[in-house]
Amino acid sequence: MNAATPSVAEGPLALVCGGGSLPLAVADSVAARGRRVLLFPLRGVADPKDYAGREHTFVYLGQLGTLARIARPLGCREIVLIGALTRPSLWSIRPDWLALRLLPRIVMAFRGGDNHLLTNIGKLIEEQGFTLRGAHEVAPEILTPQGPLGRLTPSADDAADIAIGLDYLATAGRFDIGQAVVVAGRNIVAVEAAEGTDQMLARVAALRAEGRIRAPGGVLVKAPKPQQDRRLDLPSIGPDTVDMAEHARLSGIAVIAGGTVVAEPAALAAAADKAGLFVVGVAGPVP
Amino acid sequence: MNAATPSVAEGPLALVCGGGSLPLAVADSVAARGRRVLLFPLRGVADPKDYAGREHTFVYLGQLGTLARIARPLGCREIVLIGALTRPSLWSIRPDWLALRLLPRIVMAFRGGDNHLLTNIGKLIEEQGFTLRGAHEVAPEILTPQGPLGRLTPSADDAADIAIGLDYLATAGRFDIGQAVVVAGRNIVAVEAAEGTDQMLARVAALRAEGRIRAPGGVLVKAPKPQQDRRLDLPSIGPDTVDMAEHARLSGIAVIAGGTVVAEPAALAAAADKAGLFVVGVAGPVP
Repeated sequence: MNAATPSVAEGPLALVCGGGSLPLAVADSVAARGRRVLLFPLRGVADPKDYAGREHTFVYLGQLGTLARIARPLGCREIVLIGALTRPSLWSIRPDWLALRLLPRIVMAFRGGDNHLLTNIGKLIEEQGFTLRGAHEVAPEILTPQGPLGRLTPSADDAADIAIGLDYLATAGRFDIGQAVVVAGRNIVAVEAAEGTDQMLARVAALRAEGRIRAPGGVLVKAPKPQQDRRLDLPSIGPDTVDMAEHARLSGIAVIAGGTVVAEPAALAAAADKAGLFVVGVAGPVP
Repeated sequence: MNAATPSVAEGPLALVCGGGSLPLAVADSVAARGRRVLLFPLRGVADPKDYAGREHTFVYLGQLGTLARIARPLGCREIVLIGALTRPSLWSIRPDWLALRLLPRIVMAFRGGDNHLLTNIGKLIEEQGFTLRGAHEVAPEILTPQGPLGRLTPSADDAADIAIGLDYLATAGRFDIGQAVVVAGRNIVAVEAAEGTDQMLARVAALRAEGRIRAPGGVLVKAPKPQQDRRLDLPSIGPDTVDMAEHARLSGIAVIAGGTVVAEPAALAAAADKAGLFVVGVAGPVP
């Protein structure tokens, strides 16, 4: 399959952009392949400063009509959603006329887990005649490769912690909880659910400060959920993740190679080296 | 088996008391059966005020020698450990001469999970010629019965949340993590690990306040870990748990009937009624 080498014949790609630097990295990667990119940063989520120098149209998550009206006449048939997206409030979706007709189903989508919500948004997009693609399909270089990203590598103790974390995440994945755990001294000391990875790492730092986690080191282990639709929700790490892990006094970070996005890999490797942490892509199941 | 009806012929019972009101409830229950109880509140853990009116000897967790010296001549052969015990620091163990010889193994015990730690302490006690009993064996009335404890009962939505929580806890139990989750709107929104139930409930309250948990209601589901040695670590709830659950705006609390201790059941039922929460003992696996 040649998903990684799209041609101009495929038409422009619509990129619906959440927060962070990842959407721009994907845009640059796709543009470097010679494909036109239409940027639709999400209002209230993406930072306007990041888009100041590029052609773009700010949209609310519910404005499929606006997006379709701009993208269709340009020959666009494919949409990618990428970037940080905190679970939106119904208000910030700002439904347009098209989304309004779909609103009952959008509301229903909120009743399930995050996967459920995103799956429904994906279905709505496809019903409008667009194909939903994964960012990793149009810009495969954003995925973590196997092996260490920086200078450091996991010790045998770290490897034992990583194995426990991967085992747990595979086991608990069917519950649509989080995508990450912290394992230290072969104990799972924190499990991510609604709070997200950053807040979980802040909790580990606090428990450490209180003397309630005594084992030194430890690893943040992050994996895609088994039933995750990777077109909609790719786990990601970046330099911020390294900062949080350093603050929690971990030894390093392990993610599934090919299953996790690294925003700014060079910056992340430099941050990891500076902090004395390893960041490693490990073999594991990719949905 | 007549574990619930000990006779004077069994000799006095040594009760090593952690924090909270539960040790005294157990002591009263055992004494009411006509058996003498020797109280060994843990220094730095149990509240001296609670023991002012009773004969007792404060000990550190590591002072098996002191305990044995007092209890053995009185014909005591059985020990129960009961009450809240935050993972002790090596310092607060204050090893005596006996524990010093055992210190390498105590240190080893700290390298595993909580279960591992407690199992090792249990083994040390048994090697000194004492039999370790569970509080639920000598005072079975401390266990939650099946059915509601207060006036309110779970709705159908609550029952669905409870089922998801029980399923998760059974699945994740082999990892020796926490004993509790919060499920709201059929999503697991928080998983307890090293932080404990109280801090997990505080997190749910904060996520609610930030609008990051949108489903109303929700249930705290608490169960013994599958591999848990109930003589060493019984999950427990009390009026404080109800206060925390109310603060997190939950609908109620579900625990495994016969597998969870209720400190002060009357006070807990009154607190639940006042807060408008249900507290229910449900059928489930008891290790």
